Amino acid sequence: MTDDTATDRLTELAKRRGFFFQSSEAYGGVSGFYVYGPEGATLKENLEDAWRDRFVRREGHMEIEAPNVMPEPVFEASGHLDGFDDMIVECPECGASHRADHIVEDNTDIEEAESIAIAEIEEIIAENDLVCPSCGTDLAGEPVDDFNLMFETNIGPGSSSPGYLRPETAQGIFVEFPRLKEYARGQLPFGVAQIGAAYRNEISPRKGLVRLREFAQAELEHFVDPETDEPDLESVEDVEVTLYSEARQDDDDGAPVEMTVGEAVEEGVVGSDWVGYYLGVAQGWYERIGVDMDRFRFRQHRSGELAHYAADCWDAEAEIGGDWIEITGFAYRGDYDLTKHGEYADDDFTIFRQYDDPITVERATVEPDMSYLGPEFGGDAAAVGDALEALAERDRSAFEDDEVTVDVDGAEYTVPVEKTGFAVEEVTEAGEHVTPHVVEPSFGVDRLVYTVLAHSLTQDDAGEGSEASASDTSGDSEARSASDHSSGQSPREEAASSDDEDDERTVLTLPPELAPTTVAVFPLMDKDGLGERAGEIAERLRRAGFEVAEDASGSIGRRYRRQDEVGTPYCVTVDYDTLEDGTVTIRDRDTTAQARVPVDELAGVVADLRAGETTVGAL
Amino acid sequence: MTDDTATDRLTELAKRRGFFFQSSEAYGGVSGFYVYGPEGATLKENLEDAWRDRFVRREGHMEIEAPNVMPEPVFEASGHLDGFDDMIVECPECGASHRADHIVEDNTDIEEAESIAIAEIEEIIAENDLVCPSCGTDLAGEPVDDFNLMFETNIGPGSSSPGYLRPETAQGIFVEFPRLKEYARGQLPFGVAQIGAAYRNEISPRKGLVRLREFAQAELEHFVDPETDEPDLESVEDVEVTLYSEARQDDDDGAPVEMTVGEAVEEGVVGSDWVGYYLGVAQGWYERIGVDMDRFRFRQHRSGELAHYAADCWDAEAEIGGDWIEITGFAYRGDYDLTKHGEYADDDFTIFRQYDDPITVERATVEPDMSYLGPEFGGDAAAVGDALEALAERDRSAFEDDEVTVDVDGAEYTVPVEKTGFAVEEVTEAGEHVTPHVVEPSFGVDRLVYTVLAHSLTQDDAGEGSEASASDTSGDSEARSASDHSSGQSPREEAASSDDEDDERTVLTLPPELAPTTVAVFPLMDKDGLGERAGEIAERLRRAGFEVAEDASGSIGRRYRRQDEVGTPYCVTVDYDTLEDGTVTIRDRDTTAQARVPVDELAGVVADLRAGETTVGAL
Repeated sequence: MTDDTATDRLTELAKRRGFFFQSSEAYGGVSGFYVYGPEGATLKENLEDAWRDRFVRREGHMEIEAPNVMPEPVFEASGHLDGFDDMIVECPECGASHRADHIVEDNTDIEEAESIAIAEIEEIIAENDLVCPSCGTDLAGEPVDDFNLMFETNIGPGSSSPGYLRPETAQGIFVEFPRLKEYARGQLPFGVAQIGAAYRNEISPRKGLVRLREFAQAELEHFVDPETDEPDLESVEDVEVTLYSEARQDDDDGAPVEMTVGEAVEEGVVGSDWVGYYLGVAQGWYERIGVDMDRFRFRQHRSGELAHYAADCWDAEAEIGGDWIEITGFAYRGDYDLTKHGEYADDDFTIFRQYDDPITVERATVEPDMSYLGPEFGGDAAAVGDALEALAERDRSAFEDDEVTVDVDGAEYTVPVEKTGFAVEEVTEAGEHVTPHVVEPSFGVDRLVYTVLAHSLTQDDAGEGSEASASDTSGDSEARSASDHSSGQSPREEAASSDDEDDERTVLTLPPELAPTTVAVFPLMDKDGLGERAGEIAERLRRAGFEVAEDASGSIGRRYRRQDEVGTPYCVTVDYDTLEDGTVTIRDRDTTAQARVPVDELAGVVADLRAGETTVGAL
Repeated sequence: MTDDTATDRLTELAKRRGFFFQSSEAYGGVSGFYVYGPEGATLKENLEDAWRDRFVRREGHMEIEAPNVMPEPVFEASGHLDGFDDMIVECPECGASHRADHIVEDNTDIEEAESIAIAEIEEIIAENDLVCPSCGTDLAGEPVDDFNLMFETNIGPGSSSPGYLRPETAQGIFVEFPRLKEYARGQLPFGVAQIGAAYRNEISPRKGLVRLREFAQAELEHFVDPETDEPDLESVEDVEVTLYSEARQDDDDGAPVEMTVGEAVEEGVVGSDWVGYYLGVAQGWYERIGVDMDRFRFRQHRSGELAHYAADCWDAEAEIGGDWIEITGFAYRGDYDLTKHGEYADDDFTIFRQYDDPITVERATVEPDMSYLGPEFGGDAAAVGDALEALAERDRSAFEDDEVTVDVDGAEYTVPVEKTGFAVEEVTEAGEHVTPHVVEPSFGVDRLVYTVLAHSLTQDDAGEGSEASASDTSGDSEARSASDHSSGQSPREEAASSDDEDDERTVLTLPPELAPTTVAVFPLMDKDGLGERAGEIAERLRRAGFEVAEDASGSIGRRYRRQDEVGTPYCVTVDYDTLEDGTVTIRDRDTTAQARVPVDELAGVVADLRAGETTVGAL
């Protein structure tokens, strides 16, 4: 398969079998909004559960769920109201809006046009005679504007209370920090996670599930004391990772390097111990969920890409169809977020860091005699008082003489020390208020789902030809296909099914933990009580907690193909031997190995298979 | 506790312990938006999983996940753009907006003012001298308007593509019906569920979690063939339900009656078999999740309340603090939704129902000779043609004479039959297109969470006084409390904790399936290796799939109280005997019974306890 064929094939499979498809297609569809169908919704849920298990439960963090709609002041503080923009240019002829930086990148040698100033972009468009991608009209002289990417709405009647769909789940965590720290009993470090929707009103989204206007994030905000807290680096130091550092990217011949997390942190390739720790944890998790680690790398942000608040940032990237797409960002955000909210909001975004022992410090204070300063300095008296206070904190020796001189806006004022109320006091302090730093692994759930599907989509020769030709005795699917055709319905499903009997099969090699269906149960034929027996067995598996599918339609081979295509790891066939000796055939998706298993042991066997404790071949 | 005290106490507990609280409080808060804290998010997730297990997995339905933002044409079709309104009146003095029907209900004897026409509401306000609830200004003469309750936004740049936050998750299912039916292989019945956010821009929300602007729904749309499909009533016919029918509500002395689902359907108290079926299924589910069934009823909608599309509708209602709140609506929506989308959208919202055997029917058709009709009737020719076609379908005997006469907008036109192309053909039909009917159980997740918490909040005498006085040897919490006080932080947590040592305890008697934490592990003291041993045991339980908390701070009695308050069903204490004989104490939340259990058997014991297969008292 060529790369394009592979992604096309995935899109077709996703739509036909119910993983994902564009929403509201009956109304012409809306770019950037997708629906997860029955298979996709369960896959996404399983992936989120696997994330929760690793990044919340096992790390001992908290999880919260905050609203999608948040009020304007939050985004004044976070900077999104001012800075969350793309460059837009509108075609004077056809009216289509485009990203100006994309037009420049697509038609010149310039890369990363996003970081170029608007005026310069306008010049580049004019000088290069760039045109509207939709209709070809010359765009020279057209204004390029900032377009804010937040979806805006109004909370309540009127427009006095603007609200926005959150551009990242993170803000729902930062804003609630004053309460969340109480649940952590005021102690650092602690982590708060959230899985949920975020929104970005893209100007003209393309690329399906990779660039959505509404998408799902799984974000962890780990609040740490920068001076005293350290990650458990030891637990991941031997993990091998593929690192594509900024230096390597700048080097023409530079390729990513393999090293352990321990080496990367020690050699300073990864600047932050915390980021290093999470790269190591995440590496194992990507393997667990079925990312092909030969098509994976951690790439460091180049200085131009770095958000203004981030000290060091690495992306996890997966290769799909020849493109590298970002599936996670690991950022050391410093104290940026909490400091900003502390400035804008009426609450305390710090943590009280207790000293090992209370300390006694000397503190210089002033209490100026305003009955002297007032008549003496008039309207400047208050400013002089403030200046005295600042000076006392800065340099108490200035108060050693009889007079002290301060500077207020360039003018000098001299005050007798006895009128300043200068004093040095001993104060006992139990600790100090510090603004925690934030380490943020931010996962794009939709892109992870897409990556796992793309990397698990394979085609092979099943070698199950003899079974695939076993005849269909129910007659059910033929009757249906006849009726579908006579009713003028699309023959899509039938055309697809007819491929099933080829030797080449399409398989999603999803890890059992993620597969939407764990086990499918087939009666060999739907007669002589086989159907009822299969139904009972399916019900028993369901009550044991497995996701179970039943299928009685078409040949067993065709049914295997249907389950292979949606990644069901185990298929169970109920046949005449089942009625006699109480055993069934269990078949493995990847090896197509088969074994006979007593019905009474089936749930236990499936549990062991799913946990990787045995294989069908070894049964 | 009085009713108000009970709800106040729940609100206080919810905030202090991290179940739920108003969002963005650091910025003054926004009415109608709440955050689920760490305990609440997990409780909500467990409740959703229990719903999924019963209404999706066990019923064999599909689940999808569709976007929160949907384009305008969807809501033109659904009727929300025109009809999803509340009546609003704005105070001319203070500018506050209020629901006009609420002002009427709160200040007159009128009930259900929502169904009164706007003009009449304006009259009632004037005649009764009703005033602004915020500032007391007379509202007579102020206009009452319709206010659409959907949150509006724009998709992409400009305002040419309005979008709305979905007012119900249901529309995300209806709109995708043409594709979803493919996943059901074109066969009825099938059900599609969705759990997710929905939005209602309330004019002035109050009542906390009960009336939110952003809320969570769990909706099931069960598509059925009204002529051939029947629910499995037998499986629920003996379930006892409390029914408050319309007739009972109309009767002054009417009280709800208890009967079985079978009786209710047979006697016509519940008009739809399908609604009856889901009342029976839901009854068992409410019990499972911990709703107090003595404070529960199913109430039928009165004719005035019924949505225009609903044939019969019942609400599940729970009593909290003296009020009955709706927690689920069960509606038979008929073919309303799919018919509307079929009219507005460019796709097929029907199912092809195959006949048992193809049938041959005679069909009358016309093919008018326009070269005759054109010159003869000019601009009316096409309308005459249409009228001939309609007549042929309706009454083919009209074509038995030489001439046929049709009526177009009151004018009569006579046409020679030979110019109509009239013919009767034999057509073989394999089936027919039918619009499925929809049965919809729609659950309000937030209200369910609230109900389960309210109904499980109890206070009793624990009789564990001796343990509660066991001294704290770690010294940890005292040190922290001292530092908190000296840092000027709120003494909230400390004041609350000091209650813990009273004999009266606060307990959330949540079912183990829903409890945010399944088991808490305490070292008796944090020394002599007890802390490390407790950590190992907690980790083993975590790896066995349980939600585990650890707490080493304060007396064991105080730690029990903390876990009781958040509904943790089992606490495990690691003491010096553990180091010697490898056993721990397990203690039951509700009975406070205790038993010694070997560490190696602990995970199995907790699993059995959670599944209800044994009790701590029986160990």
